[in-house]
Amino acid sequence: MSVEEGLLVDRIGQPTGVAARLASQIGFILEVDRLKTILRRTPLVAADRRENDAEHSWHLALMVIVLAEYAVEPIDVVRALKLVLIHDLVEIYAGDTFVYDASAQVDQVEREQAAAARLFPLLPDDQASEFRALWDEFELRRTPEARFAKAMDRLQPMLLSFHNEGGTWRTPGVTDAEVRRRMSVIGDGAPELWTYAQRLIELAADRGWVATAPS
Amino acid sequence: MSVEEGLLVDRIGQPTGVAARLASQIGFILEVDRLKTILRRTPLVAADRRENDAEHSWHLALMVIVLAEYAVEPIDVVRALKLVLIHDLVEIYAGDTFVYDASAQVDQVEREQAAAARLFPLLPDDQASEFRALWDEFELRRTPEARFAKAMDRLQPMLLSFHNEGGTWRTPGVTDAEVRRRMSVIGDGAPELWTYAQRLIELAADRGWVATAPS
Repeated sequence: MSVEEGLLVDRIGQPTGVAARLASQIGFILEVDRLKTILRRTPLVAADRRENDAEHSWHLALMVIVLAEYAVEPIDVVRALKLVLIHDLVEIYAGDTFVYDASAQVDQVEREQAAAARLFPLLPDDQASEFRALWDEFELRRTPEARFAKAMDRLQPMLLSFHNEGGTWRTPGVTDAEVRRRMSVIGDGAPELWTYAQRLIELAADRGWVATAPS
Repeated sequence: MSVEEGLLVDRIGQPTGVAARLASQIGFILEVDRLKTILRRTPLVAADRRENDAEHSWHLALMVIVLAEYAVEPIDVVRALKLVLIHDLVEIYAGDTFVYDASAQVDQVEREQAAAARLFPLLPDDQASEFRALWDEFELRRTPEARFAKAMDRLQPMLLSFHNEGGTWRTPGVTDAEVRRRMSVIGDGAPELWTYAQRLIELAADRGWVATAPS
């Protein structure tokens, strides 16, 4: 998406006489409609198509509610919810980066930093700072909430891939060892769920849904 | 969707030896993947297609975070987030009911109650009760969090329709008076946002994006 395209809210414009703070907030809320158009590699289980970032973010939030009890230490649920709800917003401008695509990851940080610098300042200053801080927290994984949120972000596509008889794990070049390596951060946030996830990888390898790395 | 179709998780099945509680939770998390396939009438702004319930639910959650300061009385944000994240889950089995379709609303309560009785018990008992109570709370609107969540549920499609030069307001039979009547619950949860929303309706009527009711 080019910067030149402009903000979604500017196509029609807002009513006149609206307080600047509310106008900024509505402009941001409208702009993030774009998250629904950012496709991930992961296939849905309920339909024969790929998932988008907004659906994925909703699914993670629901998982936080259902699975919070598995966090390695008690978490503040509202903080974990905010983390998963906003963690992919930068992809509106930076695009989705496939977890098993090393070449796309080369400039991922740079692209996402530029996107963050463009997106979050659409909000009033105090909220721009809050959103930026939450996004940084998710990326750095230094809090229990961020480690748990990251665990959800890894576990969710695993569930979809397993229940699609492999899904993205069938991508050429991907092996069970690589899946295990990339998904192991689940263990930092929710050890019991990492045990579960490893069972999925084992079964997928047994069933030929993911290539096995030479031992 | 027929009851006979069975649960998504049963197509592939789960690994053996998983604790019953976790197996229930994962089964539920997988089943709600269906929310991504339930189409609403509302068009997106960022793309030329209709929105689905999962995207809608994510958008409401983001709006709760950004707009909580407009709640008519202070709200517990985590509670409001849970309400919007789960409020449409029953539509997995009951389908979406268009707000301006009176005939579809005739059996809406019955359909949604049946769906709730089928969906929430997939969870462990304590969580089934929690989810059911949250869904009832949203529907009854007796708490500030539920009134605010409902306000978001009404305001979000208004933003999408306005920025689509009318969107669903162009449906034959819909008038500005009817939109105002159906959307007025926004005022119960967030009066300042209802003032904003009324401006959208006025402008849409002025521009011919919604029929005007005879005075």
